[in-house]
Amino acid sequence: MPQALVLERKGELSIRDIDLPSDLGAEDVRIELHTVGVCGSDVHYYTHGRIGDFVVNAPMVLGHEGAGTVTEIGPSVTGLAVGDRVCMEPGVPDMSSRATKLGIYNVDPAVTFWATPPDHGILTPSTTHPAAFTYKLPDNVSFAEGAMVEPFAIGMQAAARARIVPGDVAVVIGAGPIGIMVALAALAGGCARVIISDLSADKLSIAEGYDGITGINVSEADLIDTVMEMTKNWGADVVFECSGNARIYGDAIRATRPGGCVVLVGLPPEPVPFDVSAACARELRIETVFRYANVFDRALELIASGKTDLKPLISETFSFKQSIEAFERAAEGRPADIKLQIQMVERDQK
Amino acid sequence: MPQALVLERKGELSIRDIDLPSDLGAEDVRIELHTVGVCGSDVHYYTHGRIGDFVVNAPMVLGHEGAGTVTEIGPSVTGLAVGDRVCMEPGVPDMSSRATKLGIYNVDPAVTFWATPPDHGILTPSTTHPAAFTYKLPDNVSFAEGAMVEPFAIGMQAAARARIVPGDVAVVIGAGPIGIMVALAALAGGCARVIISDLSADKLSIAEGYDGITGINVSEADLIDTVMEMTKNWGADVVFECSGNARIYGDAIRATRPGGCVVLVGLPPEPVPFDVSAACARELRIETVFRYANVFDRALELIASGKTDLKPLISETFSFKQSIEAFERAAEGRPADIKLQIQMVERDQK
Amino acid sequence: MPQALVLERKGELSIRDIDLPSDLGAEDVRIELHTVGVCGSDVHYYTHGRIGDFVVNAPMVLGHEGAGTVTEIGPSVTGLAVGDRVCMEPGVPDMSSRATKLGIYNVDPAVTFWATPPDHGILTPSTTHPAAFTYKLPDNVSFAEGAMVEPFAIGMQAAARARIVPGDVAVVIGAGPIGIMVALAALAGGCARVIISDLSADKLSIAEGYDGITGINVSEADLIDTVMEMTKNWGADVVFECSGNARIYGDAIRATRPGGCVVLVGLPPEPVPFDVSAACARELRIETVFRYANVFDRALELIASGKTDLKPLISETFSFKQSIEAFERAAEGRPADIKLQIQMVERDQK
Amino acid sequence: MPQALVLERKGELSIRDIDLPSDLGAEDVRIELHTVGVCGSDVHYYTHGRIGDFVVNAPMVLGHEGAGTVTEIGPSVTGLAVGDRVCMEPGVPDMSSRATKLGIYNVDPAVTFWATPPDHGILTPSTTHPAAFTYKLPDNVSFAEGAMVEPFAIGMQAAARARIVPGDVAVVIGAGPIGIMVALAALAGGCARVIISDLSADKLSIAEGYDGITGINVSEADLIDTVMEMTKNWGADVVFECSGNARIYGDAIRATRPGGCVVLVGLPPEPVPFDVSAACARELRIETVFRYANVFDRALELIASGKTDLKPLISETFSFKQSIEAFERAAEGRPADIKLQIQMVERDQK
Repeated sequence: MPQALVLERKGELSIRDIDLPSDLGAEDVRIELHTVGVCGSDVHYYTHGRIGDFVVNAPMVLGHEGAGTVTEIGPSVTGLAVGDRVCMEPGVPDMSSRATKLGIYNVDPAVTFWATPPDHGILTPSTTHPAAFTYKLPDNVSFAEGAMVEPFAIGMQAAARARIVPGDVAVVIGAGPIGIMVALAALAGGCARVIISDLSADKLSIAEGYDGITGINVSEADLIDTVMEMTKNWGADVVFECSGNARIYGDAIRATRPGGCVVLVGLPPEPVPFDVSAACARELRIETVFRYANVFDRALELIASGKTDLKPLISETFSFKQSIEAFERAAEGRPADIKLQIQMVERDQK
Repeated sequence: MPQALVLERKGELSIRDIDLPSDLGAEDVRIELHTVGVCGSDVHYYTHGRIGDFVVNAPMVLGHEGAGTVTEIGPSVTGLAVGDRVCMEPGVPDMSSRATKLGIYNVDPAVTFWATPPDHGILTPSTTHPAAFTYKLPDNVSFAEGAMVEPFAIGMQAAARARIVPGDVAVVIGAGPIGIMVALAALAGGCARVIISDLSADKLSIAEGYDGITGINVSEADLIDTVMEMTKNWGADVVFECSGNARIYGDAIRATRPGGCVVLVGLPPEPVPFDVSAACARELRIETVFRYANVFDRALELIASGKTDLKPLISETFSFKQSIEAFERAAEGRPADIKLQIQMVERDQK
Repeated sequence: MPQALVLERKGELSIRDIDLPSDLGAEDVRIELHTVGVCGSDVHYYTHGRIGDFVVNAPMVLGHEGAGTVTEIGPSVTGLAVGDRVCMEPGVPDMSSRATKLGIYNVDPAVTFWATPPDHGILTPSTTHPAAFTYKLPDNVSFAEGAMVEPFAIGMQAAARARIVPGDVAVVIGAGPIGIMVALAALAGGCARVIISDLSADKLSIAEGYDGITGINVSEADLIDTVMEMTKNWGADVVFECSGNARIYGDAIRATRPGGCVVLVGLPPEPVPFDVSAACARELRIETVFRYANVFDRALELIASGKTDLKPLISETFSFKQSIEAFERAAEGRPADIKLQIQMVERDQK
Repeated sequence: MPQALVLERKGELSIRDIDLPSDLGAEDVRIELHTVGVCGSDVHYYTHGRIGDFVVNAPMVLGHEGAGTVTEIGPSVTGLAVGDRVCMEPGVPDMSSRATKLGIYNVDPAVTFWATPPDHGILTPSTTHPAAFTYKLPDNVSFAEGAMVEPFAIGMQAAARARIVPGDVAVVIGAGPIGIMVALAALAGGCARVIISDLSADKLSIAEGYDGITGINVSEADLIDTVMEMTKNWGADVVFECSGNARIYGDAIRATRPGGCVVLVGLPPEPVPFDVSAACARELRIETVFRYANVFDRALELIASGKTDLKPLISETFSFKQSIEAFERAAEGRPADIKLQIQMVERDQK
């Protein structure tokens, strides 16, 4: 039986042996995990025991941001080989469903997703996964970067849905890990400039470390005033709402230019007040984001080409033995901790 | 001085002489009005004295849904001639503005619009208007139908923004004049079926007079249950929210299929509760509508071709002398009154 | 061994026993065929022995436009039941391929397609097929109409790719079966009017039997002149090229309005002269069509709702015993033969 | 009378006094030119006396890529002031036309364009222009860069019409000035990588000076083979054809992935052979480009933000007195001459 980081119940983690399915389907690959990132959702299950309707009712292995090495392939697999360095898309849909046939497999109601009850995650030495959702890492992309593809994919999905026109000016509300990922995807995806807002000087400082990103500390400056000044009173072409803060949706609308787009990324737990008339007066398009589809390969292209550098966002790396410590640290919510990662293997690897 | 139907102040109408600008610009045409429709916004200014930030602070001529005959053309006008039967787009933007250059002149902040304070409307015998926003009626389209183009244009804009894919199934929430216009535009614009909901059996009965429209009386049946049953538990491809009822936005989201579109047409006076997480879980696109741009010619094509028949929606026609009576009747809000029109000319014309 | 209509080699058909695969996969259904249409491609294999790179090197069962009844379902099938009346999408992709994940499974290089060498078709009593590509017929859609969904789906795909805006004016070049299917899909999909051109008065007469379609006999009138006259010298919003005639592509471009769209449906055997500069001067968008994806359910919606009536296009129905006769008749290419169908079952069914 | 560089007739240039219109309309600004680029079309009029249907029948001032300083504003101008440093969009449409209302003013049949017969260009000390097509330069953008906006705008238009999805891989065929501009716009606009092909090692070397651009010398390597190898046999997401070479269109199609996009930028003088069936087999979208609309402000955003650096493309700068020499040099067609510019003012300015 393999060891794994198991969330026994809300607030209780253990590293222990656990019986996990290990069958290798004809179209699956077996992957030895190398690096697994700690996601806000993992931490939220740890601290709250649930996210919305997903409730931890039984011990569950955490982790869904992974990279590793293929150690075995199913008989029908053609595009991958043993020894390939890979990262994985954690959601697997019903491949024959109506949503999947439409190319929007992320919203297939039957999708299963690592570390989302009742499905186990990958903070364990090895896993199996459909080859179709396993992506080979380019030679110049490390395992650590490979494990960053999943959170970056959310930014990529947001940027794709925005339908950025080259040279757009974007606002990102919220400079947490997702906000920064969205800002980087928006820049790589065609925006000329990104204005990012937050209350935390630490977070803004990290975001502003990237060319093209300007921070606004909304404890000191008004978002709308600043955006209007920076856009000659026209507004931003795209506003990405990444805070989930109920009080910010009015600002998101008012910061957007006539005919612009608001992308809703943050997930507020309750319905928020939404000014339909103000949105209509600008005839805005409002896009929503649910995970991602068809962006892992694109994300890898951007990382490999050097257009997007995610390495500065890896705040600290823990060994698997330290993984509970990693979660405790993540639960502290230090502003400068963008991404904590857990390295599953002992030996030194790229 | 011409006569006009003047809203003196909230609640007070008079038919009287009033001094109106009558200069004919080089690119303008002069139009003798034949038929003018009574719009809900005209009635709202009459009954409330304001709509949002637009306040009636001085006497204002009402009316913006007009058709008539060209009686004079400016020296630079080429596409229209004296005697042409026409209908008019009531909003005029700054033709050199950033929004206009983008083709979204409806959201140009400088737009002026008939019967929107401080601009006069057209319930008066004659007006001048830019030729660029004056559209020749096909021979088989009557003045009465021409005066219906403006309200139908809102439906057309909603249908265009929905980006209907042929064979879509749509839901329209609210069977008032705008809801019915949206339903007709959705059908003409490629939807296979439209499910329309309301509390009024009278309104639903009028809507169901059209092939392809099925009514749901939400006092008797649940909207979500019915839509799910009619779409094999998939949801509608497009949901048009035309009620402006704050309690309905959750239903609008839940009635939409994964990856579908919600079009916000109704204008609630206050922010509404909006379930961002539910919209994200389906990764919906949400479009908003502000009046219309570039749809008058398309609306006329559909009317002239017989695909869309607006004549059943003209509930009653009044003479100009009866125009105050027409407004009093409109203010009653009879469920079966979809559109009241005022005929400005005495002589019998098509 | 079942009987089937077998194309032994170019020019030679026989009705005979043939060994066909009959395994039922876990996600498959078994279908008793009721009606199968005769497609131009079936006839072309019969008369020429090949289409492009697809060569008939071994006996092949013809037929890919089918409707029938489910007689058995695989253990994983949930959406269909024995006794369901269905029609089938004849192409099956690799469900895990890159194209399929993107929702464009029609262009997956691994797709197999009925009656396309080396794959057999369905002019045989029974077949198996993935449930994911098998669509239940609404109660008011007959088997004969069900077997028309496949050719109509090409029109649907063309209409979808055109991204019709409600009220568009379209031109369809070529009034053969595909041209008429495209014209009907364009009308159902939002066009106000369709102008269809051909040299055959018979074909034009059938097309003009539908409201909204105007024929141009290009042996008598110039296409460009007529289109410009009918569109006030602006051009058509969308031009669907369905003839594959190398000499017509210049006209297709010149008949399109500035910023309009040309959809290439017809498949010329050789490269055609294409006036890039003329297309650029109008900044046209040019879309191409390859079969279809995600349109069968939409096609059924339009047929069931009554917006599209395909019944007038069924020119004659043959029994399975007469199927060679049906192909001989089809090979004659009578102008008024839009669709010939073969009924596979003896007993009288709807 | 001002001096200007006048193309007297094919092959004959002179710097001489010429009577030019100098009226300042209410919505116009007067601009003292600082820098004017030499465009391939200017050179083509010089060497051939015509481009397609545009024939030089009378002396014409050349030049349409300009930047300068506002010296006077018309009474209705609000967004610009005397002293503003600006660049100008050389085409002016009928602001009330159908195309302009749609936002596609570049394809308005009534557009006038600098240095396109019979309209004069701007190789003269001063000109007037509508404020709506005059764009203020950000402080960190020089006049020389300002005069590069016009050619870059063609690349921007191509990138916009491609509807790049973040992380796309693009191919650009042809590494001349336009090809390089397109490559830069594609990179700035969201592509991860650009593969550019040409026969000239000099041109490829300049293009490869930019991060993210890989050159293919098609005198040494096969384009399709190389692209397929670089994209794991999938093809490029977008192929920009910038050569206008009739023999290359087949490659453009075959280098594109299933469901990808070919953008036609190069203008071949005659119709080219186009393989419709090959394009359909991949179900490609083909976009065409005509100049540009609504991209000057976006181009300035990208230049000001540092995402796009056009300065390395300015090969040499001439004084106005040397402008005939500049044209003679341009007519030589040296491979390493991407852009020659003419500085109109004596005094030293940024």
